[in-house]
Amino acid sequence: MTFTIPLPDETAYAAARTRLDGLVKPLGALGRLEDLAAWLSAAHGSVPPRELTDVRVVVFAGDHGVSGCSAYPREVTAAMVRVFLAGKSGVSVLAGLVGAQVRVLDIAVDDDLEGVPAEVLAHKIRRGSGSIDVEDALAPGEALRAFEAGRAIADEEIDAGADLLIPGDMGIGNTAVAAALVAARLGLPADEVVGTGTGIDEAGRQRKVAVVSAALARAGAVQEPFALLTALGSACAAATAGFLVQGAVRGVPVLLDGVFSGAAAVVAREIAPGAERWWLAGHRSTEPSQAFALKALGLEPILDFGLRLGEGSGAVQAVPTLRAARAILADMGLLADLGS
Amino acid sequence: MTFTIPLPDETAYAAARTRLDGLVKPLGALGRLEDLAAWLSAAHGSVPPRELTDVRVVVFAGDHGVSGCSAYPREVTAAMVRVFLAGKSGVSVLAGLVGAQVRVLDIAVDDDLEGVPAEVLAHKIRRGSGSIDVEDALAPGEALRAFEAGRAIADEEIDAGADLLIPGDMGIGNTAVAAALVAARLGLPADEVVGTGTGIDEAGRQRKVAVVSAALARAGAVQEPFALLTALGSACAAATAGFLVQGAVRGVPVLLDGVFSGAAAVVAREIAPGAERWWLAGHRSTEPSQAFALKALGLEPILDFGLRLGEGSGAVQAVPTLRAARAILADMGLLADLGS
Repeated sequence: MTFTIPLPDETAYAAARTRLDGLVKPLGALGRLEDLAAWLSAAHGSVPPRELTDVRVVVFAGDHGVSGCSAYPREVTAAMVRVFLAGKSGVSVLAGLVGAQVRVLDIAVDDDLEGVPAEVLAHKIRRGSGSIDVEDALAPGEALRAFEAGRAIADEEIDAGADLLIPGDMGIGNTAVAAALVAARLGLPADEVVGTGTGIDEAGRQRKVAVVSAALARAGAVQEPFALLTALGSACAAATAGFLVQGAVRGVPVLLDGVFSGAAAVVAREIAPGAERWWLAGHRSTEPSQAFALKALGLEPILDFGLRLGEGSGAVQAVPTLRAARAILADMGLLADLGS
Repeated sequence: MTFTIPLPDETAYAAARTRLDGLVKPLGALGRLEDLAAWLSAAHGSVPPRELTDVRVVVFAGDHGVSGCSAYPREVTAAMVRVFLAGKSGVSVLAGLVGAQVRVLDIAVDDDLEGVPAEVLAHKIRRGSGSIDVEDALAPGEALRAFEAGRAIADEEIDAGADLLIPGDMGIGNTAVAAALVAARLGLPADEVVGTGTGIDEAGRQRKVAVVSAALARAGAVQEPFALLTALGSACAAATAGFLVQGAVRGVPVLLDGVFSGAAAVVAREIAPGAERWWLAGHRSTEPSQAFALKALGLEPILDFGLRLGEGSGAVQAVPTLRAARAILADMGLLADLGS
């Protein structure tokens, strides 16, 4: 499986840098905004870049095959799908402020979700996933199927007009899976990557370290990305990876959220090297494995609010920053015009 | 001179914390947003707090009595006033994105600003200020007059409907003055507080350290706030201090910007202890004296984008975060309703 990832436009990047240096401000005084402005110019092949008007969050919902690692019972995942549909989730509210759409999809919720609209269930891969400390997360073929579903979902959003994609996640147990994927992929011990997730105490974290350690020991030295997703991942992880890859294939910027999309990104980059050129990191999560993932990807988070909600809730808050980055290129005056 | 600073509403703060804990998310998962939501609730005395619809940036423009410390000549200050009036400055563009108004005022520009609307000049205190390494910045009485002008300006904005005030600054030489004020007030050596301002090199920074050292030596142990503003400040510093104090007196939240408003805040807090309860820090500047100032004030910046433009350009970018903080309290669902 090989993908052709378009290259961002180096000429537009250089032209953006030249224009940034000519704006009515000291050289470099807008810091990170200038970097993002040049990045977006390269992505869009134009200076200024286009406006980011059509921003779409896709929340991949599913239960994860680890138990006793969360402060919340598994039933919460299904209940939360209904909260998303009612527009009452954290990301629903935060997306509304920046005019972004939120689409929730049941990828692997361990529930039939009776009464939920059919389109929410259209990409369902399975109910839950195997408990990674004792068995594979997925059956043979499911990782690829979920990956292809994620690609198809990205295509749907892009064809409908998305100019920025944000992957969201909802699933009890998913920070343990994220930690396992990052640890396996980057060769790190469980204790370094496991965090407190939804807010467990230190004893709970130690149980989670034991689960992730057992999972890593069981999976052995598996490194091939789909084998990794099968052994230690989940249908949501595979679908998110596909979503990230397809954004890059289509040349549409993707704003990663927290630990779950970071872990999926580390695997996705193995599947499609160079895809990371189309990704930005929206925020710094409190989960340690995200920091390792972003470092490996060469990405620096835009915001750092101590968030650990998932759902795309951190990334969506970085949208105003991307719009600000575009606006300085589009609308600020030039030093050359000063005094004229 | 004593001021009565209202106390934020502790009952509303506690009610906000209770509601935050009941929202559809793990406890504390929205990190800094939760802190800001509770802060705003206390400021407004209601849960949720009111919407921040009327946000106003006031840019205090003036030349500062230090020479050879900037990468830019003094004439830039006057030219920049015209850029603000044309809506082409950095903060003009960034404020537009969040629906904030920008008002620029000539407090001490070393130019007659011919042709500029009279209201821009209405609060002018003087042309430029003394070079602090060799003489006082201000003549006797000017610091108080500028301080009162800043208070009057805050009153004007609040009476016109402002529910969030942002102090901006524009003035070649003003980071040297900010560093001198912070060093004098907090007892720090010049070398620790002096940064690269508009982007000078290390030799330039050493010259600036020498200027600030000379200023500190000349001013001696002066600590009384108005004496400090007279010896080492500027009309802009005094006006900004008055603006910050009056926001607090009126119980209107103020979002500090970078190093200049941070230095003014350190002095303003001495004039009106407790005023800092009404202040938030919008962003982390690259100037070292801002970090000292914020630490002394007990404030943690919201954003960290490596900005060093001034103008209010960093603070205005934190407005979406404050609105997000309010929105989670206003619009997210409750755990108690989950599954119902």
